[in-house]
Amino acid sequence: MTTDIDVVVCEVGLRDGLQSIEAFFPTEEKIAWIQAEAAAGVPAIEVTSFVPPRLIPQFADSQAVVQAALAIPGLRVDALVPNLKGAERGMELGVHSLDFVMSVSRTHNLKNVRREREDSIEEFRRIVAAVRQLPAGQRPRLVPGLGTALGCSYEGAIAVDEVVKCAVALAEAGADELMICDTVGYADPALVRKVFQAVRAEVGSLPLGAHFHDTRGLGLANVTAALDCGVRRFDASLAGLGGCQFAPGATGNIVMDDLCFLLDSMGLRTGVDLDKLVQVRQVIARNLPGVPLYGGLARSGLPRNYIPAAQRAA
Amino acid sequence: MTTDIDVVVCEVGLRDGLQSIEAFFPTEEKIAWIQAEAAAGVPAIEVTSFVPPRLIPQFADSQAVVQAALAIPGLRVDALVPNLKGAERGMELGVHSLDFVMSVSRTHNLKNVRREREDSIEEFRRIVAAVRQLPAGQRPRLVPGLGTALGCSYEGAIAVDEVVKCAVALAEAGADELMICDTVGYADPALVRKVFQAVRAEVGSLPLGAHFHDTRGLGLANVTAALDCGVRRFDASLAGLGGCQFAPGATGNIVMDDLCFLLDSMGLRTGVDLDKLVQVRQVIARNLPGVPLYGGLARSGLPRNYIPAAQRAA
Repeated sequence: MTTDIDVVVCEVGLRDGLQSIEAFFPTEEKIAWIQAEAAAGVPAIEVTSFVPPRLIPQFADSQAVVQAALAIPGLRVDALVPNLKGAERGMELGVHSLDFVMSVSRTHNLKNVRREREDSIEEFRRIVAAVRQLPAGQRPRLVPGLGTALGCSYEGAIAVDEVVKCAVALAEAGADELMICDTVGYADPALVRKVFQAVRAEVGSLPLGAHFHDTRGLGLANVTAALDCGVRRFDASLAGLGGCQFAPGATGNIVMDDLCFLLDSMGLRTGVDLDKLVQVRQVIARNLPGVPLYGGLARSGLPRNYIPAAQRAA
Repeated sequence: MTTDIDVVVCEVGLRDGLQSIEAFFPTEEKIAWIQAEAAAGVPAIEVTSFVPPRLIPQFADSQAVVQAALAIPGLRVDALVPNLKGAERGMELGVHSLDFVMSVSRTHNLKNVRREREDSIEEFRRIVAAVRQLPAGQRPRLVPGLGTALGCSYEGAIAVDEVVKCAVALAEAGADELMICDTVGYADPALVRKVFQAVRAEVGSLPLGAHFHDTRGLGLANVTAALDCGVRRFDASLAGLGGCQFAPGATGNIVMDDLCFLLDSMGLRTGVDLDKLVQVRQVIARNLPGVPLYGGLARSGLPRNYIPAAQRAA
């Protein structure tokens, strides 16, 4: 892609989507998905999670998937790492971004990663230390995500102060970027503005990204609010695949195809070819015939005479 | 309802939703829908369309439906009127709001109401004149809607100047309020801001409402942008029922239940009881078993420990 990009979208369906699906998605089909979506112009893909295969067998093929993804020129290859051990695997394989995960909700953090939040932050510090032992040019980006930052299905509302506290701790520990995550789809645009502005005020120029779920239909409304706060990095999953097995009632991530249409419509270049992107849904459809696929763009197509953002006069 | 309201939502599923559905929705079930949704706190319902029954047999029972709706205390009863004749029927029956419709797209207006736009504006003037013959206390509100104001499936993009021109003409002719309609779901938040700001600049303090479709998934993102422009009146249909038979590719209106959740989450009071509202979907489900019902709130329920806007401390 030679196109300039205004907003970086990251596909997380291979991790956040597949982690809640028991049927094993064949390795070669995961790779086909990654290759097709990269070919459609998606610049970053979280391709797997380095969790123990006994916990989530879906990710038993993480090494093969990562290696195939790393062979794609220009693609940023991310992996979720729940702990130092996962981060070490990512470093060995040469993953570009290590997406560490902790929850602002104490209860959710205990359920999801079986740790107190302080212990999660301590673990992140160990990851930072390990990464810094690599030569400067070989270090992966460290991108911790703050789960349940906009609400928790165990605790309900989450105090903005708690989000800021965790964000500052991770920033000070050495994060290169922070993802603020609405893990269970509780956010609304007013809360999004409040949380992102509060975090922004305390973390200086550290890049902030948003990870929204469309559980209650507000996902793209929340993106609109985050854009207003200057956020230019968004996670999404093709066809809205996703959920969280430890978050009752959670459903999919925001729909990647609709997110890219939203951004492109607004004149924000993503590098993505919308027609090609919609075609990639076929890989999911043929492998997960019983799983609902979401999305308005795929249903209704592009507007008549639609001009992509990259082709519009500045 | 003694609650104060920050945003007025208007249910349009009985008109915009049912107009594209051939199977006759029984009159008593239409009335049950209206009664249940009014009981859930929805303050305004567009209950029918005064089009000739030979064109849309679904509305052959408009008189019975309007009379039942008018019997509900406190409910604002709206009806779509395509022409003077429809307006006269509305006036005879005592409808509270006459929702006149024209399209900014010349092609769409010709297809939808078989008139040039100038003739539509002329027809609206005749309606205004007819209404003004009634005593002041008995006059219905005149609420013209500008269809395809954010894009047209025949013409593609619509020039903002054209929207403003039509809006000004209708305002000068005597509109009490203007609805700006994304008939075919082409809008994005940036375009919404541009169009509403441009219209606002030319129509003074005339109330502006928004009528969005969720065709490509951006409906509530567009609501968020319209809220930023000060819009406080929104059409929606329960479960996203809707479409337009003269707009290829169009699907439903924005989902009323998710709209109310969006607004309430943001602290904007609608007067609607979200739990009760979701229950009303059963009336649609039992009458239209083959029709897809949309919506995240109905799927996932309210967030844990959710506090409705009306009960939060100011």
